[in-house]
Amino acid sequence: MIATPDALSRYHDAVQAEMRAALPDVDLPIYDMARYALGWQDEHGNPASASGKGARAALTMLGAEAISHDQEALKRASSGAAAVEIVHNFSLVHDDVQDGDVERRGRPTVWKIWGVAQAINTGDLMRELADAALRRALLHGASPGSVIEAVRRLNRATMLMIEGQYLDLTFEQRTDVAVDEYLAMVERKTGAMMGVSLSIGATLAGASAEQADALDRAGKRLGRCFQMRDDWLGIWADPDALGKPTDADIRRRKKSYPILYTLDHAPSAARRELMEIYRPDLGGDGADLPDDQVDWVHNLLGELGADQATDQAARDEYEAFRSELESAHPRSAAVDDLEALALFTLERDR
Amino acid sequence: MIATPDALSRYHDAVQAEMRAALPDVDLPIYDMARYALGWQDEHGNPASASGKGARAALTMLGAEAISHDQEALKRASSGAAAVEIVHNFSLVHDDVQDGDVERRGRPTVWKIWGVAQAINTGDLMRELADAALRRALLHGASPGSVIEAVRRLNRATMLMIEGQYLDLTFEQRTDVAVDEYLAMVERKTGAMMGVSLSIGATLAGASAEQADALDRAGKRLGRCFQMRDDWLGIWADPDALGKPTDADIRRRKKSYPILYTLDHAPSAARRELMEIYRPDLGGDGADLPDDQVDWVHNLLGELGADQATDQAARDEYEAFRSELESAHPRSAAVDDLEALALFTLERDR
Repeated sequence: MIATPDALSRYHDAVQAEMRAALPDVDLPIYDMARYALGWQDEHGNPASASGKGARAALTMLGAEAISHDQEALKRASSGAAAVEIVHNFSLVHDDVQDGDVERRGRPTVWKIWGVAQAINTGDLMRELADAALRRALLHGASPGSVIEAVRRLNRATMLMIEGQYLDLTFEQRTDVAVDEYLAMVERKTGAMMGVSLSIGATLAGASAEQADALDRAGKRLGRCFQMRDDWLGIWADPDALGKPTDADIRRRKKSYPILYTLDHAPSAARRELMEIYRPDLGGDGADLPDDQVDWVHNLLGELGADQATDQAARDEYEAFRSELESAHPRSAAVDDLEALALFTLERDR
Repeated sequence: MIATPDALSRYHDAVQAEMRAALPDVDLPIYDMARYALGWQDEHGNPASASGKGARAALTMLGAEAISHDQEALKRASSGAAAVEIVHNFSLVHDDVQDGDVERRGRPTVWKIWGVAQAINTGDLMRELADAALRRALLHGASPGSVIEAVRRLNRATMLMIEGQYLDLTFEQRTDVAVDEYLAMVERKTGAMMGVSLSIGATLAGASAEQADALDRAGKRLGRCFQMRDDWLGIWADPDALGKPTDADIRRRKKSYPILYTLDHAPSAARRELMEIYRPDLGGDGADLPDDQVDWVHNLLGELGADQATDQAARDEYEAFRSELESAHPRSAAVDDLEALALFTLERDR
């Protein structure tokens, strides 16, 4: 297992404190639902520690470091880091409703505990909390103009993320999704929030619009890299590292990159059989693929080199990330950390 | 039927144009879902005209007029009016999912056509579009500082609205809701958005924070007035004017103000019987109250004077609105229009 990059932990406590400071002191259980979704409480309101890795917060802080190492600049960026983490978690609350997922980070999902109606409310509330977090940059000395620009970037990225979620849901109903369409969806659903993480941190640290735009493009590439690796792990991961069986994504009939690549490259008879297996009306939690078909798909993917193709696609995105990063003219001290984080994304085994 | 105030139509076209300008030129069906929810299209994408009355937009423009009659100030306020209308419609899309309502303004609801998952996405997207609309005030010459302040107010009001929706959903599961609790819920769910309508228009037109705060309080009172009248109409309206039968809210077991007032004032035997009738597990669309029980509730409300009490509560809110409005020191030219709009709220028969 490769080492977790230092950047993931360096600002963790500062960003968590900034997130907590964004919650108003209102005594209503819906705020406890938000605290649960953020991993700070269990469902009974007792303290818990179940937050995500904070990858987006780390990107925000490194985006700021790429521009400035001034402590005030980093303080301002921490408001942006808090905002992107809260938006990310808002999207997970709504995604879990939309996908009917009952578990997240080893705990029941918000809708599973409090019902769909209140989960919708909780997500809606968290989106508002994110903007409240971002505006705290004003308290740390950010100019109104730079905060408006940060708000605009977060707004735009959230819109793209929702477009991505829209597309992802429609793809579930199709078997004719092209690889390029899939990547365009991934760039929105996953890439947009990674892009804005980098660019919002940079903006709050004083970046030019050109620098922020370059970092935004770099983050989108990183999001695509992240998803390609995720798709690879969903089929070929070491089960002990991943904590779920090899071929998990095949079993769940997930139309991830390796499957779409194979649909593009398979001879027509195999392609027809694969499309039949991935027919939307056969999918869903209740209809895992039988073992013999899992083996057949696994072997077909192997014959067509989908393993290497997926790995190569992830590596291509990593290189594109590096190139976009360079075009932002980042401070050299931050480049090592950013590349280490990206390399971790590319080579993680879980 | 009393005349519709002129203010509801005066800025209608300008605000609708501002709303349309906020939508990006993206060719994805989720934007058509948003256009449907805003009343601009039918479900097949053909032009339609099914928008709401635009009460919040009118309040925003009158809030601006209360401060300035400068054409540039009003242009800036139109961005705020577009934003509050879009937020209001976003909340309706999610409310309809949460309440399971299948019809809105005589058309199928978004979730009924496109499913719950995409209705959640559509509402989420519209919330983002509202902020994009608001930021257009910058294009009309608003300062970054005033736009940040407008964003803050919209953010805060949306949070209160979501708190109100949270409370409303929990009240459905209770029979012991006190009148004061109900009014506090109404102030959030309905009042907050009317408050911010007035205050955001004023802010963009150059109001002081004190003036904007006074207008915000006035709008919250107007929201309470609106709901009290709504609750009155739900039981005692002329069925021909309302387009649904008298006692509609009794039949649907809606725990509106007259019922809560009666629960507070009824002798204990009648109170117990009323509570039994309004037990949450008996409610819901599929369980309309039988005629004889509707009559019994209607008569009990009459005996206890819930009719007059509800009407009086609405009138008290109207007076409180006028008083808060006065404390904002509005331009006298706008006061007549604002009072006409509030009086319409109080005395409308549908």
